[in-house]
Amino acid sequence: MIDFTGTYTDQYQLAMGQVYFLTGRKDQTAVFDYFFRKNPFKGGYTVFAGLSDLLKILEKLRFDSLDLAFLKARGLHADFLAYLKDFRFRGAIHASREGDLVFPTRPVLRVEAALIEAQLIETLLLNILNFQSLVATKASRMRQVAKARTLIDFGLRRAQGPGGYFASRAAVIGGFDTTSNVRAARDFGLTPSGTMAHSFIQSCPDERTAFQQFAEGWPENCVLLVDTYDTLKSGVPNAIAVGKEMEKRGHRLKGIRLDSGDLAYLARRSRAMLDDAGLDYVKIAASNQLDEHVIKSLLEQDAPIDVFGVGTNLVTGQPDAALDGVYKLAAVDGRPLIKISENVEKITLPLQKQVFRVFNGEGYFLGADAVGIEGEPAIAMMHHPFIAHKSFVLAHCPMEPLLEPVMRDGQMVRDMPDLPAVANYCRERLALLPAEYKRFENPHIYKVGISTRLREQRDRLIAAHKE
Amino acid sequence: MIDFTGTYTDQYQLAMGQVYFLTGRKDQTAVFDYFFRKNPFKGGYTVFAGLSDLLKILEKLRFDSLDLAFLKARGLHADFLAYLKDFRFRGAIHASREGDLVFPTRPVLRVEAALIEAQLIETLLLNILNFQSLVATKASRMRQVAKARTLIDFGLRRAQGPGGYFASRAAVIGGFDTTSNVRAARDFGLTPSGTMAHSFIQSCPDERTAFQQFAEGWPENCVLLVDTYDTLKSGVPNAIAVGKEMEKRGHRLKGIRLDSGDLAYLARRSRAMLDDAGLDYVKIAASNQLDEHVIKSLLEQDAPIDVFGVGTNLVTGQPDAALDGVYKLAAVDGRPLIKISENVEKITLPLQKQVFRVFNGEGYFLGADAVGIEGEPAIAMMHHPFIAHKSFVLAHCPMEPLLEPVMRDGQMVRDMPDLPAVANYCRERLALLPAEYKRFENPHIYKVGISTRLREQRDRLIAAHKE
Repeated sequence: MIDFTGTYTDQYQLAMGQVYFLTGRKDQTAVFDYFFRKNPFKGGYTVFAGLSDLLKILEKLRFDSLDLAFLKARGLHADFLAYLKDFRFRGAIHASREGDLVFPTRPVLRVEAALIEAQLIETLLLNILNFQSLVATKASRMRQVAKARTLIDFGLRRAQGPGGYFASRAAVIGGFDTTSNVRAARDFGLTPSGTMAHSFIQSCPDERTAFQQFAEGWPENCVLLVDTYDTLKSGVPNAIAVGKEMEKRGHRLKGIRLDSGDLAYLARRSRAMLDDAGLDYVKIAASNQLDEHVIKSLLEQDAPIDVFGVGTNLVTGQPDAALDGVYKLAAVDGRPLIKISENVEKITLPLQKQVFRVFNGEGYFLGADAVGIEGEPAIAMMHHPFIAHKSFVLAHCPMEPLLEPVMRDGQMVRDMPDLPAVANYCRERLALLPAEYKRFENPHIYKVGISTRLREQRDRLIAAHKE
Repeated sequence: MIDFTGTYTDQYQLAMGQVYFLTGRKDQTAVFDYFFRKNPFKGGYTVFAGLSDLLKILEKLRFDSLDLAFLKARGLHADFLAYLKDFRFRGAIHASREGDLVFPTRPVLRVEAALIEAQLIETLLLNILNFQSLVATKASRMRQVAKARTLIDFGLRRAQGPGGYFASRAAVIGGFDTTSNVRAARDFGLTPSGTMAHSFIQSCPDERTAFQQFAEGWPENCVLLVDTYDTLKSGVPNAIAVGKEMEKRGHRLKGIRLDSGDLAYLARRSRAMLDDAGLDYVKIAASNQLDEHVIKSLLEQDAPIDVFGVGTNLVTGQPDAALDGVYKLAAVDGRPLIKISENVEKITLPLQKQVFRVFNGEGYFLGADAVGIEGEPAIAMMHHPFIAHKSFVLAHCPMEPLLEPVMRDGQMVRDMPDLPAVANYCRERLALLPAEYKRFENPHIYKVGISTRLREQRDRLIAAHKE
């Protein structure tokens, strides 16, 4: 879909890159961590999404001739331009599995690469992962409340330009069934969904004629929009009449769609009218400014809605609109590094790290991830990152390492799972997360602890900085 | 940048398209209006943006071989597929000038085309115009408060995926000076801006060395990030020392950047330290979760900040994240059409319309746009769309028609203005809008009235629907 080239980055990456290049530091080995500081939507978890897109883009990332001509005109150094001409990303990436649940402050992904390469890909990496994780998380919240009902992404028209393309993919990872976005469906192997707009009905002499024409054109997939004139006095009666005609021809009206008014009331009345007419198999779809809270409310009112079409609030990740993911340097040439801050929670963790998910005796998530130094033996105890007396003995807890190698020498180490597999993994992981972390109001806080060794390393660096 | 193809649409457009095709209605002439119902950000105006991108995309819009293979596999009718294979948009578009200020409920753009073509482009049109108009409007609010100070878009890393590409363009239309987004700068003729990240400083043995390396690499364009360790105890003193060294070599330190902490306090203290050292020419840049309200507050505190770098809140159009633009059918084959709604404000206006901007005697916007039927003689009086007794005599007011032809037979009628020209037009138009429409709190409501003829036409259709 998108023509990602080397200039899909911030100017400062190139400014720094040139200095790394000219000072002979470009091939220093760097370790960067991708993580975020706050779950979106005041929620208790985040769904990690965007990984396979990122890796595919990185494999092919080059500065094209337009990029190089532009950078030359911008006055970059000739030797640096020659370097960029042959640039490709040759680094290694370890990452959580796409679709897994991830939590604030612990590494979600780690890049090990030549300093200059790791720097040049930062903006792209954040741009892809932050947005898809935001939307997948939003989608998962709607899936939670919608339970087994159908959820369809209708958002492309209100999406942030071509961001809508990845939004549709992320929505499926978080639990949506499919999308109205045909291009995303094409590229991500989905069955696009959609029926008719008000304009179709307006363009016909009357509503009944419109419904008949549509039923003839799509006898197997006919969902009629019933609110163009008057839902209960015109739309539903006409849909019933056409549904009866369809029966005579051996077809079945698939559904009606409500797109305005009081959806709970209209769904109940429409259901009763359909049932009274013997059309109990006709589904009711609803759309119009839905989000997880509206869907929850509708279902608490027992609104007989089978399909929810969600647009703006899904694809733009409202009300947050961005995940605050960052990319921080943890080591250069083996030298451990941290970023100091007066706000202790913003102090970063040094070195290559591994993250372990801790399980309880029943096989559910215990509610904690433990971060250690890559390669250190089993973590027996984890500590609160900053409160000295808070620690937790892990000796008897099953643990699972989360960061797996996904890219080596700039090449994916294996094919990434396809979209249904990623969505399925997300569903499995959500089933392992206790309900108190999934509720919308004041969810329980999932803990992230650090190993004794990692704490020692970090505290040594803090002390050194103080001197 | 983006490979827009025919499937960049919602499935229902194709579902309807096939019915239009199979029922022989595809070439009925349709008139659609693009408009929105609410200014974003509780503001008093909206900046119209995205037009030239839309037109360029429409000129080239085709269903490619992947699109056609996918749609074939989806079971579309062979004759309809043959039609799509040769599809191009051949319609006409009238539009407000890009960069103009536009207001709720009045047509911003009008499409006249074969019904099937007008329908197939709907999603793309909304996707491009809604988002760029949202971001341009947001940017213009920051320009208002920042006055002559420099505004730079830093948002790509937090943008909604490739939406960031168009966000950077729209930001410039609304008044931003430039962007850190190199790809957008390349394609839209901007000078990208950016200097260094914390990682650059961390990767060096110490902050002073980092500053020196950067000053050597970029002697003419050196902005030093001063908050990596301690802004006032380390960052600013090191920047001053390096600035003094640069002076000895005949260069000048361009600026320092603050990216955390209390920006007002740190800017004041940094300014004093720089001035005391004789570096009064060094600019102060600030970033970190800025928006129009934070910038306003900083300047009310007389914070000596010269450059603002704005990210997330700009490129995602927070807190709204979407403009609610819609695309409604106004006529088919010359037959005027409206969309009925129980909510009277949602009843649409029929037929091809022209919109007039009304000026006052001093050449400023009077605060009203008048909507009439295209071709009707001078509008002598405009009426409130729904309140019967509210009307306004226009006889002596200068008026300017706003919808100009921009596309005919699917081709742009002329080259569109370039980005600086669009930004300049926006600036000129904002200067004509009285202040009470631009304030952030409870702005005055800009009025939209309709002509006597248009009201008659619409009321006749409402009456017909009631029967």
